[in-house]
Amino acid sequence: DPAWFGLAFLLHRPYTHQRCEFLKYLEKNGIENRPIISGNFIRQPCISTFCEEEHPENYPGAEVIHSRGFFVGVHQIPLDQAVIKQLVDIMLAFPFSPYHFTLVTGSNGMLGRYIRDVVSEQSSSTEILDSKPQKIRTKDSEWIFATREDGDLRRVEDVQYIFKRYQPTRVIHCAARLASFQQMSAKPVEYWFDNVTMNNNILKTAYEFQTWIGQIKLVSILSTVMFPKDAQFPIDTSSIYNGSPHPASESYAYAKRSLAQLTQWYRTEYHCNFVSILPCNFFGAYGDFNPRTAPLVNALIAKIENQNPSIPLQMMGTGQPLRQIMFAEDLARIILWSLENYSEDQPLIVAGEEVSISQLVQLIAQQMNYQGVIQFDNDTNKDGPLRRTADTCVFAKLYPTFRMTSLSLGIQKTIEWFRN
Amino acid sequence: DPAWFGLAFLLHRPYTHQRCEFLKYLEKNGIENRPIISGNFIRQPCISTFCEEEHPENYPGAEVIHSRGFFVGVHQIPLDQAVIKQLVDIMLAFPFSPYHFTLVTGSNGMLGRYIRDVVSEQSSSTEILDSKPQKIRTKDSEWIFATREDGDLRRVEDVQYIFKRYQPTRVIHCAARLASFQQMSAKPVEYWFDNVTMNNNILKTAYEFQTWIGQIKLVSILSTVMFPKDAQFPIDTSSIYNGSPHPASESYAYAKRSLAQLTQWYRTEYHCNFVSILPCNFFGAYGDFNPRTAPLVNALIAKIENQNPSIPLQMMGTGQPLRQIMFAEDLARIILWSLENYSEDQPLIVAGEEVSISQLVQLIAQQMNYQGVIQFDNDTNKDGPLRRTADTCVFAKLYPTFRMTSLSLGIQKTIEWFRN
Repeated sequence: DPAWFGLAFLLHRPYTHQRCEFLKYLEKNGIENRPIISGNFIRQPCISTFCEEEHPENYPGAEVIHSRGFFVGVHQIPLDQAVIKQLVDIMLAFPFSPYHFTLVTGSNGMLGRYIRDVVSEQSSSTEILDSKPQKIRTKDSEWIFATREDGDLRRVEDVQYIFKRYQPTRVIHCAARLASFQQMSAKPVEYWFDNVTMNNNILKTAYEFQTWIGQIKLVSILSTVMFPKDAQFPIDTSSIYNGSPHPASESYAYAKRSLAQLTQWYRTEYHCNFVSILPCNFFGAYGDFNPRTAPLVNALIAKIENQNPSIPLQMMGTGQPLRQIMFAEDLARIILWSLENYSEDQPLIVAGEEVSISQLVQLIAQQMNYQGVIQFDNDTNKDGPLRRTADTCVFAKLYPTFRMTSLSLGIQKTIEWFRN
Repeated sequence: DPAWFGLAFLLHRPYTHQRCEFLKYLEKNGIENRPIISGNFIRQPCISTFCEEEHPENYPGAEVIHSRGFFVGVHQIPLDQAVIKQLVDIMLAFPFSPYHFTLVTGSNGMLGRYIRDVVSEQSSSTEILDSKPQKIRTKDSEWIFATREDGDLRRVEDVQYIFKRYQPTRVIHCAARLASFQQMSAKPVEYWFDNVTMNNNILKTAYEFQTWIGQIKLVSILSTVMFPKDAQFPIDTSSIYNGSPHPASESYAYAKRSLAQLTQWYRTEYHCNFVSILPCNFFGAYGDFNPRTAPLVNALIAKIENQNPSIPLQMMGTGQPLRQIMFAEDLARIILWSLENYSEDQPLIVAGEEVSISQLVQLIAQQMNYQGVIQFDNDTNKDGPLRRTADTCVFAKLYPTFRMTSLSLGIQKTIEWFRN
């Protein structure tokens, strides 16, 4: 007789919104129930006037009991098995439908903004709830787009506060501190500490908060800088660690490698549903358009925009090397898909169309109606590897119907954003 | 006229002990001087009675001024260049002789204890100053042997407290959290976090405290587990990152790799005199003698000790693989030598004699007067790589006169310690 008064239940976090409905349903089916007395006292209107300085979010255990807990009374006469089975059957017959709380870190970055756009367009019932952090409600999730203003992810207290406050059931971890190769190679210590600390804090907190929240799906975003500097193509997940990354972004790359490893270790040690996505080169609106620091396509757009067409445009190298290029909006769609569909151990490599640098420059010039001459200096020393093709067959198998935006359309959209 | 009253000077930390002598010397040579008025007020006997709760160590800036600062008066009539040169000449003519403060972390480990032993024997004037942490005074340094009792290196506050308190000019960072392969592979998250956090805290704090202390020499101890699992011999520093480490100690190994990298990044970004030593297999007294978790030689000693000589001793594998084995006391001597003599970018690889596993077993059995039969099961699957020879030629060039203890003498000393 472990329970002499009542059986305590907790709904999983994604079913919080169904608590009232569920309790009414139980009552209708003859199962008496009550709220659990302790709850979160700070939310009690009278008590809150005595402790105005306290935030209910600081008591995550009480919050959980408050919002998701209930008692079912224990009968004074022992029940037989059939009645207990009936109780269970009634409970499970309820039409549970999960409603998620999805936290996106780094929401001011290029990728974070595309994720927000795709989320906004995915549901006609989108409702913008708040602006700091920006919150959007869709039919299956509330989305919390956190930025630097909502907390410094290098401070574990800030990360804990965000988790206490929003109790996310899903996390898309896009936040990273990066800069031009020149800046990163000048300050390796800072780029190592900032990135590794953010990643450690996010994964550790997500793991620890599973006690309150239940299983959390966490998707981390990696980077091709992780690949060894002289990797043989096609690069797959088995070759990521076969050599040092490029020295120009070494400490940033090692922080991404440790993020991939930690993701893996949380899976093996605690069976966490943490996964990682490893995207190749991507481009798009919202991003950096500084010719010296921006991703390849964005830098080319900025360069051509500022070029006097009567002077030949000078490009470094031969233009022959092939690169996989992807529109950031496609990556955003894949990341959102992965929340539901990707649960494998290995980082999921995704990449776009493979084109030569010269084809790419021609394409951009054409879209921008640039009429001037384009000249490559044909210095092979500036080319870098001729191909760095990554193996995307795992993704192709898992999501065969996914259609990437054509490069020309992606570039066109990016130019439009850049010009307006 | 920047100074209307006096010129403020700070002695470097290793000359703290000469401050009084130096000030008397200045006075004798006609250079008037005074203590800097602010100093550390909490050390003022009267004031200290009003703030008994305060620790003077919590004010490292005031401490520095207190213990190493002084004023030289400025003459009311501008001095000519010759007089200023004379002032400088007098100051530099003082017989400065550095006296270091050397912090050893992980002093309860096998290596830490050998370092303490070698330090104790190096000077006849050794004076044991304190027991918590154990402090030893030799003719050129005060040695602070910190253990878990003196602070949890995973807490940055504890590390800062140790640095505030002892202001070390040299650090030997031996502390690490390790266990058997079985334990480490079961809890990769913990071994990653604990080790990477300790390392990050130690290096970051040492860098930051250079503001108060002046340049700090820091020697970190790495491990052969860093090497790729199927590294080709001879392994040198260029091959450390050419592949994943052995999965059994993967997260520990990655934490060591990141220690080596961070050491390197502090050198390139801030010109810190941080170096690292990468020792191969070592053995000795004080260590673990649990047959399942101890280093190779220690485990064999424990195994043979408990063996009934009338039953054949079963060994796994063929006994053919070659391994480099080193007495921990030799490693301690090399680490102490590196404080003065090693300032290169690359981890310094050091290793002992190369012997086959079967030779090693014979040698230990002989030293232990074990008369029983020894049988290898000759299962080549249990052998691991046939050789994992590391390239020690850099060390051999830098310290050609170093003589390693013979394997048999090292083993003999270890057995003696184990039996008593």
